[in-house]
Amino acid sequence: MAGSAGGERTARANVAAFDRWEIVPRVMTDVGQRSLAVELFGERLPAPVLLAPIGVLSLVHPEGELAAARAAAELGVPYVLSCASSHPIEEVAQAMGDGRRWFQLYWSRDRELNASLVGRAERAGFSAIVVTLDTKILGWRERDLARGYLPFLRGEGVANYLSDPVFRSRLGRPPEEDPAGAAAQFLGLALDPTLAWPDLAHLRERTRLPIVLKGILRAEDAERAVAAGAAAVVVSNHGGRQVDGSVPALSVLPDVVRSVGGRVPVLFDSGLRRGADALKALALGARAVLLGRPYVWGLALDGVAGVRSVIERFLAEIDLTMGLSGCADLAGFDAGMLRPAGPDGRR
Amino acid sequence: MAGSAGGERTARANVAAFDRWEIVPRVMTDVGQRSLAVELFGERLPAPVLLAPIGVLSLVHPEGELAAARAAAELGVPYVLSCASSHPIEEVAQAMGDGRRWFQLYWSRDRELNASLVGRAERAGFSAIVVTLDTKILGWRERDLARGYLPFLRGEGVANYLSDPVFRSRLGRPPEEDPAGAAAQFLGLALDPTLAWPDLAHLRERTRLPIVLKGILRAEDAERAVAAGAAAVVVSNHGGRQVDGSVPALSVLPDVVRSVGGRVPVLFDSGLRRGADALKALALGARAVLLGRPYVWGLALDGVAGVRSVIERFLAEIDLTMGLSGCADLAGFDAGMLRPAGPDGRR
Amino acid sequence: MAGSAGGERTARANVAAFDRWEIVPRVMTDVGQRSLAVELFGERLPAPVLLAPIGVLSLVHPEGELAAARAAAELGVPYVLSCASSHPIEEVAQAMGDGRRWFQLYWSRDRELNASLVGRAERAGFSAIVVTLDTKILGWRERDLARGYLPFLRGEGVANYLSDPVFRSRLGRPPEEDPAGAAAQFLGLALDPTLAWPDLAHLRERTRLPIVLKGILRAEDAERAVAAGAAAVVVSNHGGRQVDGSVPALSVLPDVVRSVGGRVPVLFDSGLRRGADALKALALGARAVLLGRPYVWGLALDGVAGVRSVIERFLAEIDLTMGLSGCADLAGFDAGMLRPAGPDGRR
Amino acid sequence: MAGSAGGERTARANVAAFDRWEIVPRVMTDVGQRSLAVELFGERLPAPVLLAPIGVLSLVHPEGELAAARAAAELGVPYVLSCASSHPIEEVAQAMGDGRRWFQLYWSRDRELNASLVGRAERAGFSAIVVTLDTKILGWRERDLARGYLPFLRGEGVANYLSDPVFRSRLGRPPEEDPAGAAAQFLGLALDPTLAWPDLAHLRERTRLPIVLKGILRAEDAERAVAAGAAAVVVSNHGGRQVDGSVPALSVLPDVVRSVGGRVPVLFDSGLRRGADALKALALGARAVLLGRPYVWGLALDGVAGVRSVIERFLAEIDLTMGLSGCADLAGFDAGMLRPAGPDGRR
Repeated sequence: MAGSAGGERTARANVAAFDRWEIVPRVMTDVGQRSLAVELFGERLPAPVLLAPIGVLSLVHPEGELAAARAAAELGVPYVLSCASSHPIEEVAQAMGDGRRWFQLYWSRDRELNASLVGRAERAGFSAIVVTLDTKILGWRERDLARGYLPFLRGEGVANYLSDPVFRSRLGRPPEEDPAGAAAQFLGLALDPTLAWPDLAHLRERTRLPIVLKGILRAEDAERAVAAGAAAVVVSNHGGRQVDGSVPALSVLPDVVRSVGGRVPVLFDSGLRRGADALKALALGARAVLLGRPYVWGLALDGVAGVRSVIERFLAEIDLTMGLSGCADLAGFDAGMLRPAGPDGRR
Repeated sequence: MAGSAGGERTARANVAAFDRWEIVPRVMTDVGQRSLAVELFGERLPAPVLLAPIGVLSLVHPEGELAAARAAAELGVPYVLSCASSHPIEEVAQAMGDGRRWFQLYWSRDRELNASLVGRAERAGFSAIVVTLDTKILGWRERDLARGYLPFLRGEGVANYLSDPVFRSRLGRPPEEDPAGAAAQFLGLALDPTLAWPDLAHLRERTRLPIVLKGILRAEDAERAVAAGAAAVVVSNHGGRQVDGSVPALSVLPDVVRSVGGRVPVLFDSGLRRGADALKALALGARAVLLGRPYVWGLALDGVAGVRSVIERFLAEIDLTMGLSGCADLAGFDAGMLRPAGPDGRR
Repeated sequence: MAGSAGGERTARANVAAFDRWEIVPRVMTDVGQRSLAVELFGERLPAPVLLAPIGVLSLVHPEGELAAARAAAELGVPYVLSCASSHPIEEVAQAMGDGRRWFQLYWSRDRELNASLVGRAERAGFSAIVVTLDTKILGWRERDLARGYLPFLRGEGVANYLSDPVFRSRLGRPPEEDPAGAAAQFLGLALDPTLAWPDLAHLRERTRLPIVLKGILRAEDAERAVAAGAAAVVVSNHGGRQVDGSVPALSVLPDVVRSVGGRVPVLFDSGLRRGADALKALALGARAVLLGRPYVWGLALDGVAGVRSVIERFLAEIDLTMGLSGCADLAGFDAGMLRPAGPDGRR
Repeated sequence: MAGSAGGERTARANVAAFDRWEIVPRVMTDVGQRSLAVELFGERLPAPVLLAPIGVLSLVHPEGELAAARAAAELGVPYVLSCASSHPIEEVAQAMGDGRRWFQLYWSRDRELNASLVGRAERAGFSAIVVTLDTKILGWRERDLARGYLPFLRGEGVANYLSDPVFRSRLGRPPEEDPAGAAAQFLGLALDPTLAWPDLAHLRERTRLPIVLKGILRAEDAERAVAAGAAAVVVSNHGGRQVDGSVPALSVLPDVVRSVGGRVPVLFDSGLRRGADALKALALGARAVLLGRPYVWGLALDGVAGVRSVIERFLAEIDLTMGLSGCADLAGFDAGMLRPAGPDGRR
């Protein structure tokens, strides 16, 4: 969970990038009534925060994604369920009642499998599909390599697949009898390195849900995403877990925001650790942020309560930082609240 | 005392900001007779230094603010008494004889309480009111949260309130009988997140003392402060204890100085540790600086003598650095004495 | 092996220089079929990687250069044999079958010796001569000085000389009988600090092989190298082992590439540790890179298998990073894939 | 010896400043015959290096300045004797035979004392007077303060004074009988904070020796130094021992060189640790450098031999770095050999 790709330089750069922007608080504005609410897809979120999709959470806690989803639901924070969940879509949905939920899809080579997963999510009350674009091949993760760790071979993080009728139909024998065969099938099918822009049409035809494209780092890719009908884009480098040496996500956020020009919401993840980080991303044009690793630490320590505690503290720090900066709501925390770090605020 | 807000990034940035400016000493000027004197509010101060308002000093020494005030008085350095003092206004005044003293006000929701506190300060010989603008809500201080520390609940740092007739009149039972009730009342009353520019008129009508506005970080807020009748402004981010992720105070000092344009004095705190730091702030346009945490370390170690020792050393280092830079007085230590750090002095 | 010149500042700067450029991955391009192949001297290399010439490898493993050469041959990676090899040219050639190999020459004061070494390499199937320009004098290497270490005096790293008929003809007695005399002769002959541009004509007349000039850091020297008939140049500062305080090699690569203007291939070494580093050098205009120290660590740990493992991992990380960045081949990984590190990608 | 002023930020910045410039070596130039010789005051020095004046060397070795002077003489390196020497002028002169020597003067309030010291130096074969401009008051040195250390009170570093007829004539009783009285007299007399440009005329009239002004950091002060008849200036911040927070000496060297415009030689000290540092200062316009602390470490470890060893290694590293950079002499190592550190060599 803590590990990233290669020398983990991008993972560190993600965090350091926030220090390049500094908040310049205003004083003497009434901040007695504050709101962190934002609008997304026509709905009002209580705060500009979602839980990012992180798979195989059974690694840190037996309740895994169920616990994370429950905590999110209790606080009204949307939960993005990872395709590589330790628990199947339907169980997660049940655990979170009517809590807002999105489903993250790793695009498979098997289009029927994609359609099956998306259909199940749709039926289980997930309200958006997040397609991860930056993981068509697994990154070079040395901590995993050094441990010889691949969860899928141990049957972890494949609950959505083992429970899927299309996936099961591809197997010679049921996974309960032949786990190795199922794992081999999974490794062969789960990702599709040939995925390209034209393929998205296939997904658009199969679901009525908004499609969110995650992993955009270039202005021209954001442009193509909008042209391809994306309902939102997520600026992200997968928390530094894919391309070590890549640009910190925050550094390219302004480029993407400029390119999108308000046509769809821009979301953000990668490197967020504190309330001020979220506000900086918002001031640079993100509509909301996806909180990742921090909630996993909460999960590891205390299950549902741990995740809830991390979210509560993250929101509290956002609220205090916004209020202490003189803003009563997020509309007020615009680009004028920041300045580039340096002796005179010029770059 | 050592802790700051959030990840304490701004607290560290405050200190590091001084390294971005370097002194370029002159040689061969007569510095046999040197003076650190500055004029402030028509009075001549022996040095461009005041003690910053820091509350709850009983945490580090039983004599708390009494000791700090006494040390300041012995050296002719103005003492700014914190609203959250461990000892009441009147006792501090008595302890420091005719030493110069200012009173720092945390603006309460209860306007009569504000008026009462200010009136007491006025009667006790305090010669200016410092209104802290950056603390209408308490910052996110993790060291305190981790320790479950809130001094006010233990009756510390509330001496000015418990001794105040208006505050006492708000209680159902006297604090001596119902400390919990007093603490609850304090927490509900002490700060006012709705405080805004128009409210200042209320204070201006209630006191003949000059009003100093502390916590200004933006040129336009400095402009409004002057327009609102402030007698001086203090560029400060509360030593990094309020908005983690905010700009280091030194970085915005030139902006504020330019905006104020000499109409009122600009004071400065946040990050000062050494004599050269003070001189850099002065060269960038501050009239005087408020020394904060360093005197608390002196207090913790040796009471009055410890505070005196810290102040003496701070002044000695200012004096030596000024003299060794070729300046016999502070008028000579102007912006031309500095250059931005870097290979060629250009930003 | 780990040591560099002086305070090893340039060795560290070489590595840090890669962090000044960041990859901006593309998404949604078909990377199902990827190739790392590049063309060099009319031949197709499987990857843009050669093993850099490093001498005296017997220091870390008894099979020394034989093992490194074998591993390179097994993976189709060209091996550049150091002039200061622990094993003679002919043995290395035999060990690697028809694996691609180049011979690196330290230009001797004794032109007949140069001609003899080059002739032997030519006959042993080496297909290019790499003349190292940055080592006409040995650098100031404090780790060696502190240990009183000079391998040549112990008969290490001189196999090519002791086996050379011209070298032997310069000795009064055979080296087997008088090792000290041979060592003295070696020290007197091996390098030529007077080597200058006109001397290259001598070598050009003696060999039909392409001549690669290694150690170029200036645009005007690259220009002269092309004019002097170099078949390729290597931008390198010898891994920081010669001039401590010199520019990191990566910083000057764009200058040299611009100067050469595509007339001959530009190769690169110094500071490469990971796949992303190689891609950054290629995006800045290098045709291929020479991997140095990392393969020595593999050799030290596990001989042939260790070197092979290091190369395999290096190539795997290049392949994954290229693919995850949205490029199916190296032609696609051009300068547009990078941006300078910083808040807005401007320098 | 290791300590500097204040927080020792300038001492660290002095060293770090060299990393802002990087050498770009040339290749393929004949460096078989190299020379480090420079001309200074009409004489040819074997290398562009002098030993900087450092006083109270008895602290680290009983032979103190005698040993340093002897080592310098043996290697033909000029020795600048500190005014605060542990051994009198005449003994140092005798120890170094006809080795080149300059005398550094701390300008006293007592002009007759200045004249006496300079006259003694002149008679003892010293060939220049170095007036230190940056030490008219002692810096704020916390390591010394923490130890309660003041060598002069213990009779150390005052040999030139105790042996001086003018100084002795100022005492009520001879120092052998009343050391405390002598120390008090020394502290009262030794420095003159009123020293200003017009005072130099006094010295010019009293000696035929060239006057070198040490401690210049500003272009306009360099201009005044030349106008006042200085034979050379030394860009120096006293190794960071006087104004903590001051500019690193290397950063202002180009300004001073530009201001002096070749009318007199510009020398340099502060922060030099390695050969490349010396070459960078020379490339930026210094005629020669003064090596300071490093030779004291040699002295502490091994007396004369230790100092000699440090100088020899320093010269060897300069020679190798020059040669490996493609220059046969220092005239070739000009500003074109450097470039500012950074991704593209632009500032």
